Parts: sequence; structure tokens; C-alpha cells
Amino acid sequence: MVSGTRAVTRCEALGRAPFSDMENGLYRAWLSPAYRAAREQLAAWMVEAGMTPRTDAAANLIGRYEGTQDLPPLIIASHLDSVRDGGFYDGPLGIMLGVECVAALAADGRRMPFPIEVIAFGDEEGSRFPAAMLTSKAVAGVLGDVPAMTDAKGVTLAQALAEYGLAPATLAQAKHPGALAYLEAHIEQGPVLEADGLALGVVTGIAAQLRYGLVVRGLAGHAGTSTMPLRRDALAGAAQMVLAVESIARGDASDLVATVGRIEAAPGAANVIPGEVRFTIDVRSGDAGRRNRAAENILDALEAIAEARGLDFTFDLIHDLPASPCDAGLMDLLEEALVESGHPARRLVSGAGHDAMVMASLAPTAMLFIRCRDGISHNPAEHVEPADAEAALAVMLGFIEKLGANYA
Amino acid sequence: MVSGTRAVTRCEALGRAPFSDMENGLYRAWLSPAYRAAREQLAAWMVEAGMTPRTDAAANLIGRYEGTQDLPPLIIASHLDSVRDGGFYDGPLGIMLGVECVAALAADGRRMPFPIEVIAFGDEEGSRFPAAMLTSKAVAGVLGDVPAMTDAKGVTLAQALAEYGLAPATLAQAKHPGALAYLEAHIEQGPVLEADGLALGVVTGIAAQLRYGLVVRGLAGHAGTSTMPLRRDALAGAAQMVLAVESIARGDASDLVATVGRIEAAPGAANVIPGEVRFTIDVRSGDAGRRNRAAENILDALEAIAEARGLDFTFDLIHDLPASPCDAGLMDLLEEALVESGHPARRLVSGAGHDAMVMASLAPTAMLFIRCRDGISHNPAEHVEPADAEAALAVMLGFIEKLGANYA
Repeated sequence: MVSGTRAVTRCEALGRAPFSDMENGLYRAWLSPAYRAAREQLAAWMVEAGMTPRTDAAANLIGRYEGTQDLPPLIIASHLDSVRDGGFYDGPLGIMLGVECVAALAADGRRMPFPIEVIAFGDEEGSRFPAAMLTSKAVAGVLGDVPAMTDAKGVTLAQALAEYGLAPATLAQAKHPGALAYLEAHIEQGPVLEADGLALGVVTGIAAQLRYGLVVRGLAGHAGTSTMPLRRDALAGAAQMVLAVESIARGDASDLVATVGRIEAAPGAANVIPGEVRFTIDVRSGDAGRRNRAAENILDALEAIAEARGLDFTFDLIHDLPASPCDAGLMDLLEEALVESGHPARRLVSGAGHDAMVMASLAPTAMLFIRCRDGISHNPAEHVEPADAEAALAVMLGFIEKLGANYA
Repeated sequence: MVSGTRAVTRCEALGRAPFSDMENGLYRAWLSPAYRAAREQLAAWMVEAGMTPRTDAAANLIGRYEGTQDLPPLIIASHLDSVRDGGFYDGPLGIMLGVECVAALAADGRRMPFPIEVIAFGDEEGSRFPAAMLTSKAVAGVLGDVPAMTDAKGVTLAQALAEYGLAPATLAQAKHPGALAYLEAHIEQGPVLEADGLALGVVTGIAAQLRYGLVVRGLAGHAGTSTMPLRRDALAGAAQMVLAVESIARGDASDLVATVGRIEAAPGAANVIPGEVRFTIDVRSGDAGRRNRAAENILDALEAIAEARGLDFTFDLIHDLPASPCDAGLMDLLEEALVESGHPARRLVSGAGHDAMVMASLAPTAMLFIRCRDGISHNPAEHVEPADAEAALAVMLGFIEKLGANYA
């Protein structure tokens, strides 16, 4: 049996004890007991599929299936860790589908010209230590210095790694010698494919992201004693700004999204006019230029609102993450495989970050998005239809065939 | 020396140890050591002004200056307690000006046909126990049941009253036998008089107040993966609602005010579209009908916004306080005194509550508002110009003369 359904079933099996660190839900933290148990189970599945598992210096589990030529491998990967009280599929599904790809080849007694390595990255979410994608950064050779870090229980990263005979200072030794290509299948974690009635989509890249922290200052006052014309209400001003952010992003009518996710009004009493409001703006697009123009338009609009209302307005750039485009040639291969499997061609940007954005430093990358119900992720309600995983598996196998044809 | 300036100076003197319960600021809590010290100092000032002080069953200090006829008294009152880290004038200024009124009469060896009682209420702010205006309610005879209450340090109301030989069950014995009229001078605690360049204004009443708690529910989602057209962003909806509240109140172009003072967006992360927003609306007007119409318009507008955005919207009425109009005849007397003192006639509603709204159950009431700098109150920056207090004293004396003329 080789199937996408089995990939889904295995993700579900990993959602319970001993593969979860919490009761009545899934939390699989990097290097935790649940993580170790999941790793061991996955290694067994890799062996069953015909792979040879090994562990690298960042505790990543790598299953290798040899090829017929002396070529760098195709890496198929995603992450084994989860957020707290997360869903079953965010990460593991991409690994399990990689295992199924190899199992399908092995079942036919076939080998590709290149080796295939299925990698289970340990830390994508950053849900245990305050840093994300440490393990793919180590593999891609872009790790840099690893600061001393402690988890919520006071365990240091050094202590957690020591259980695997590893150390923070040697994580960087996990750097991979090089790959032909990198393929990651992942649930979309958004509602776009579902809204369009599509099971799958080719990812064009990870969106460029800007995040700002903003402060609007007016004059706090008694809600009963300050007449409307005399007010400098920081919240009314901020409300107008929130709508400006939404309006500019909507008006762009592209992949551009802009979000105000946090807002705090001070002093925050029902009978006091807010004197100060703090909020965040997150702007993303697959096109950094488009993102930057939108952010400029937003900040200009906010300045104008503040000025018209006699409010002070300041902002800080919290972070600026560049876009990470997928490889044009691999996207074309993946789209061909998609269409040959009977699906409409569809490309979409990923608004969320993935290991693929890090791995782009090591190899050309491709990503396949799989529809998830209601776009829900990072939540126990996360759901993937087995039929969609079957479809993804067929497209991934088609992609592998097409890549192999390049070396025939 | 009889002067408004002295009234101001005395308020400032009461702003420091031993008359404050906090260091580097003023907090005078009902029945606290600072309150006791202030009460003793005030009693001495009352005696000096020619009054006889007594304490009622609610620990209120009442200074009495006899009249020439057997009439109920004119009560001149305000409160001696303060909010935590408050200003010097909110409350005490009205008491000190009452003392000055009597001192002025006594200095001239004059008595009015009616007695004058200057009352220092103990608990207007509700800053120690979770209830406000307990003491004026006791005097007005509208106290009702007094629940068991404990302050932030675990001291019960019963324990605090016992130090004065009093008890919660007998607070109601403070009910006053009846008064000719009630006069309260108070800082405006708002910016209206200052904006119009006026030192004083006649208060038309305490505004009727409605307060709502509202919840807007949309769909939380990843800020990167949910395209703009697919969002049901609870915060964008709430922002539109905040602006609708402001717009309806502004459009009324009256004394009506409406305020969103609290807002909370959940889950409240920069990279998550808010799925739920809770906020408050406070609506006030001197005219309850006007207030009710505005509140209806606001709720209708909010329903429409929610519907247009596919959001759920619910609200609770938190409280509904009726308007408490001042007495028409006394307002006229006070305005005549104002104009004869050389000030423009000016009437304004009080958006904040005062002991006067409670005392309206006992006697016809009048209130004189005194300009305060930048409308700031409940804050150490609270400031009153001595010249404005002088002007207030002159107007209060004029009012007393006019009231006396009714009994000549």
C-alpha cells in the first residue's frame, strides 16, 4: 500500500501519546520526549519504505534512498515539531508524503538518477525555544551564532541537545553538502485554494513581510466632561488608521495583505477617552516592491489622519523579511505535474514562512500547497481530506519523474 | 482675610502629609488616617469661620452657621476624599469655598434668614470601597442596603467605621431633616469653560448616561495566508464601529458625548487576524431622550456594519443612569449672581457625576463649575487659578444674598 491516505493517517497517529507532549491535544516540541518518540516512529517508517535513516548534527532525521548516478540528492522535507495545541498536518504531512514517494519507487523496484533524501526538520515553529527554523538554517548553512536559550521550563538548548549527544556550538556541522532541488509539500494554512475549489497549488515563493509597531497619542479625558469638538481621541484616530490599512490592502487587489492584529488603548477605562493607542501592522506580498509601495501608502495615510486629528503618531519597523521566491524551473515542472494529474494550473504565494525559504540558500526550491478545511491551522480543528493528500502524492511523483527525465 | 485664594491654598495644604495616604502624591481615602487628619483640620477652619462642627452617622463633617429665622438650612457641600494620585481641588475646593462664604458673612457680623451648613462628604469617589457617593446617599436618605465591602488592604467597611464609633447598619441615620437648597461648587473636570475663555458656568444638571459592553466576532486567521476578500476581520469591523460612534455623537452637535474607552482584540498577535473584539460605549447627555435616540442610532449603525462585514455582533447594557437636572429657580439665581459679578451667562451640563445628583432627592440643587487648566482632573496636574476661585466665591456670595432676599 502506497497512499496519500496513509500519509494522513500517520499524521493523525502522531497526534496522540506518546507523540504529543500535552494531554487532549497535540504539542510536539523540538527535542522533547514526544519529539523523540515521533522521530523513532518515523525512522521505522523510513526503513519500511526502503530508506536508510541517519541523524545530522542538528538532530534532524534524514532518510536516504540511493539513486543510480553520482548526483546530489533531491531533498523532500518539512518539519516534525508543532505549535502548542496545534493541528496534525502542519509539517508532518510533507514528511509523510516524502516517505510515500520513496515507498512508491521502492514498491516498483525503481531508483531515480539522483538520490532522494527525506528530511524531518526538528524546529520550524520555534514553539519551544525563542527562535524558529534553527534546524533548516543549520542544514542550509545559514545558522550564524546560536544564542543561549531556555525553554518555558528552564531547560537550556544545550541541555536538550545533550540528550542527543549534540551541542549548540556544533549545530552548524549539519550543513548539507548540496542538493539538486528541494521540494516541500505543506498544507496551505489559508483559505485561498478552498475558496477556489482547488485541492492543490504551486507556491511561487514566501511573501516579503514588513511589520511595524505604531503609537498614536492624543489627550486622555473624562468621557462625560470633554465635548466632542474638543477631543483628541487616540482610539478614534487609530480606528480610522485600521480602516486605512484595510482599504489600501483591499485596493491593491493582488496577493498583498495587511493586518492590524494587536491594539491596546490606554488608560483603557470605559469612562475615559483613550489618550494613547498602540497597534501593529503586518504587510506581506510575494513582490517586495509591491509590499514596500503599500507600506509607504499606509504610513502616508496614517500621518495624514494623525495630522488632521491633532494626534501624535510614531512608528517603528519591527522587522523586514525579504521575499523568498521558489525556483522558476522547478515551479514549471511542478505545474506540469499538476496539470498532467488533471488539476487546473494554479500558483499562489505563501504568506507564512516555511523551511523552504531557508533551504533556498542551499538549493532551488519548489513547494506544493494542499487545501486545508476553512483555512484553519495552528489549531486542533486543522483538517486535510485524504483525497487531497492522494492528489498531492501523485503530483509529487510526477514532479520526481520530470526531474529525473532531466538526468536520463 | 476672606478669599477664594485662601480656599485654593487650603486645598493645596491638604495635598500633603498628614493629609494624604500616599507619598509624593495625593490619595485621601474615606475614613483613612489622612482623611481623619483632613477632617480635623477642616473642623478647625470651620470654627475659625464662625461655624459649629458636628459629625453625622455617616462620618460626614457638618459645620453650621445659624440664621435669623427658623428655616431649614442652605447646604453648601462637596467631598473630602480623592482618587488615588489625584488632584488637590476635585471636591475640597467646593468645601473650602463654602467655609469662605460663611467666613465672609461672619466677618461682617451678618446672618442670613436661614442657617448655612457646610458639609464635607466622605465618600464621593468610591476610591477606597467599591461603591461611590455612599455618604451623600446617607444624607439624602437614599442609601438603601449597604453590602459588606472590603478595601484593597482587606479592611472591612465595618472596621473602618468602628474607628469613628459608627457602623454600616446605622449609616442611614445620617439622613438630613431637610434643606432649603443645595449648592455645590466644583472644578469642571473638562475643557469646555477654558475653551470658551470663561472662569465659571452654571450647571444645568448631571447628564443621563448609558453604558454598553459590545462583542464583535469574525474569523481569526493567519495574517499572511488569508487574502483580503476572504477575511472577516473583527478589528476592522470594530474600527468602523468606533468611527460610527464618534460620527453620530459629533453630528448631534449638542451636549451629547459618546466614547469608546476600552477595546480588546483577540487573540491579539501581530500575525493573526483578530477573530473577536470587545469594546465599551458610553453615551451621555443632559437630555435622556437625546441620549436614547443617539444610542439607538449608534446600535443601528453597528448592526449594519456587522451585517455588511459578515460579523456577529452582540451588546449588553451595563448601566442606565437617569439625568439629574438642577433646579430651574436656583439656576436662575446662580446665573443672575454670575452676570452681576461681570461674567457672561453660561450654562453647561455635567458629564460627570457629583454629590449634587444624589442630594437632588433631598433639596433643590444648584452647581457652579469652575474652570480647571486643560480640563485635567483625577491627576496631580489638576490646577485651578486662584483668580477663578475668587470669582466663584463672589458668585456664591451673590447667590446666598439672592436666596436670602426670598426670605426677607
